Amino acid sequence: MRLSEIGGESGFLQRLHQTYGNAGESIVVGLGDDAAVLEPPAGRQLVVTSDMLIERIHFRREWSDPYSIGWKAAASNLSDLAAMGAKPMYAFLSLGFGRDESVENLDRMFDGFSDCLNRYGARIAGGDTNGCEDALIVSVTLIGSVEPGHAILRSGGRPGDALLVTGTLGDAAAGLALLTEYGLTHAEKIFKPLVSAHRRPQPRVVAAQAAARTGKVHAAMDISDGLGADLPKLCASSNVGARVDPDLLPITDPVRSAGRLLDVDPRFFAVSGGDDYELLLAVGHADVDTVLAAIKGTGTPVTAIGELTKSGVKLMTETGPEDLPPDIGWDHFSK
Amino acid sequence: MRLSEIGGESGFLQRLHQTYGNAGESIVVGLGDDAAVLEPPAGRQLVVTSDMLIERIHFRREWSDPYSIGWKAAASNLSDLAAMGAKPMYAFLSLGFGRDESVENLDRMFDGFSDCLNRYGARIAGGDTNGCEDALIVSVTLIGSVEPGHAILRSGGRPGDALLVTGTLGDAAAGLALLTEYGLTHAEKIFKPLVSAHRRPQPRVVAAQAAARTGKVHAAMDISDGLGADLPKLCASSNVGARVDPDLLPITDPVRSAGRLLDVDPRFFAVSGGDDYELLLAVGHADVDTVLAAIKGTGTPVTAIGELTKSGVKLMTETGPEDLPPDIGWDHFSK
Repeated sequence: MRLSEIGGESGFLQRLHQTYGNAGESIVVGLGDDAAVLEPPAGRQLVVTSDMLIERIHFRREWSDPYSIGWKAAASNLSDLAAMGAKPMYAFLSLGFGRDESVENLDRMFDGFSDCLNRYGARIAGGDTNGCEDALIVSVTLIGSVEPGHAILRSGGRPGDALLVTGTLGDAAAGLALLTEYGLTHAEKIFKPLVSAHRRPQPRVVAAQAAARTGKVHAAMDISDGLGADLPKLCASSNVGARVDPDLLPITDPVRSAGRLLDVDPRFFAVSGGDDYELLLAVGHADVDTVLAAIKGTGTPVTAIGELTKSGVKLMTETGPEDLPPDIGWDHFSK
Repeated sequence: MRLSEIGGESGFLQRLHQTYGNAGESIVVGLGDDAAVLEPPAGRQLVVTSDMLIERIHFRREWSDPYSIGWKAAASNLSDLAAMGAKPMYAFLSLGFGRDESVENLDRMFDGFSDCLNRYGARIAGGDTNGCEDALIVSVTLIGSVEPGHAILRSGGRPGDALLVTGTLGDAAAGLALLTEYGLTHAEKIFKPLVSAHRRPQPRVVAAQAAARTGKVHAAMDISDGLGADLPKLCASSNVGARVDPDLLPITDPVRSAGRLLDVDPRFFAVSGGDDYELLLAVGHADVDTVLAAIKGTGTPVTAIGELTKSGVKLMTETGPEDLPPDIGWDHFSK
């Protein structure tokens, strides 16, 4: 069905209004007016992030169905809030798409977006549609909250802190490499979990809140651009260095198998790959067990991979500490 | 200068952080972390809007310089908050652009965005950059606040209410028609104010807050898609009709001159044109003078153009009330 058959942009917004209009008690006015009116819980600070997915940069239509695109747009923003230890609340979704986009595809995109939000306690509070014939654009703003002063920043790391990561690294990057090499049908047949990691990442909202409640996390960020790109950002913000033991990186058997198949060192996926949406945490040595237990208590795997130092970001190798290779990880404009 | 010369995306975000990082006392953490941390004033409701500008849909690079593009992105969102009677506070800017975009252009875009925000008391609290070779994408979320229960909705209009509009209508649409016909240099030479209305609209934040303070406005919205498209939306939300006298529409002499030059009825610009960013207000008859005085007190022109009725949206003509022509105004997907 084409949008023109349901009354164009107005008709589609009305449809969204019917589905998501009265989304929750703290949403006083949701979709359908010039702006949303919200009543967040009193006495908390707001935590706000914005992130955009662009066709052919962040996803490809031939590899990601509309539901997965919507899901990933929610997940990438939820992951940023998780990295602050915040509780997600309200999401705003602005879409740009061509006039040949079907209503069914748009509905599925909103379904994926909304399902991922709901799983982590957030809801759609606003949306906007725009014509864009060049590429599908999915722009999201997500608002959450924290107890005043309890947001976990990138800047609190101290030399000697243990470095922890949740989950496993490199799954999404290996999935993307498989999709690139074999296409969707074959890649899914041989390594479905890796393809899913690329298409429908699981943000670490619950683990992050458990870690934040311990009050023992000095610094955190999410690893959306790859550990090799993101760890130096945390170090720069905290004005510290880091030393990581590549042999400690949590890498799954499927990532190792994909590495063998594609003739790639699986640690490359784990260090340079993007889209992991895992958390990187810096914790004082005396509190490591407390934080590990809190995160494991949510059913989330977590691994110590190294520590913060006074300066330099190094990988431990057989011949001693080595600098990270330059141009590692994901930066749109580094070249 | 190319982005790669200042360290790519990370370098640019760092630059933004230095310029806009500590933007205000209620911005606890601005640019530079996974998300912003905000402490809005206690006891107020939040008002949030998202709006996207896309190259070749909402602006053209040959007609709009980077400063104007940034300005318009801020203005269109400020206008949505104005329509709710809200006080603007925090803005989030997500950009998608190609790797050949110069640092100078991006700086000017942020300057225009920030200058427009600052004029109306809001600040940049977050930003995000993305690679997009197909088109320049400017996606904004703006957060403001109102006294609880004081947001002005579209849904409060009642039959018999007077319809007011701020400023003048059709300026931006006439400006766009002139740009299309003559190109930038010649269009600016003959009708600079109309070209400016298209490139750097002035949102009615101050007038809206003055009107809201009277407590006498039943309904409001901004006229960003043209009166002919937006009035029916207000009527649908309020479950009323409307009657507008086209001879009362506030149309400037330059719009009339442009109409003569282009052989277009100037009322067409005023009714079907988009991008006006004026306010449409519904006010009980007994309170019209109070609201008119409040708005005029801010130096903003305001005009009564008709009234709300029980049903139907009609233009008064010499032969009596007539339906609005179909397909009027701006809808990306109506055809």
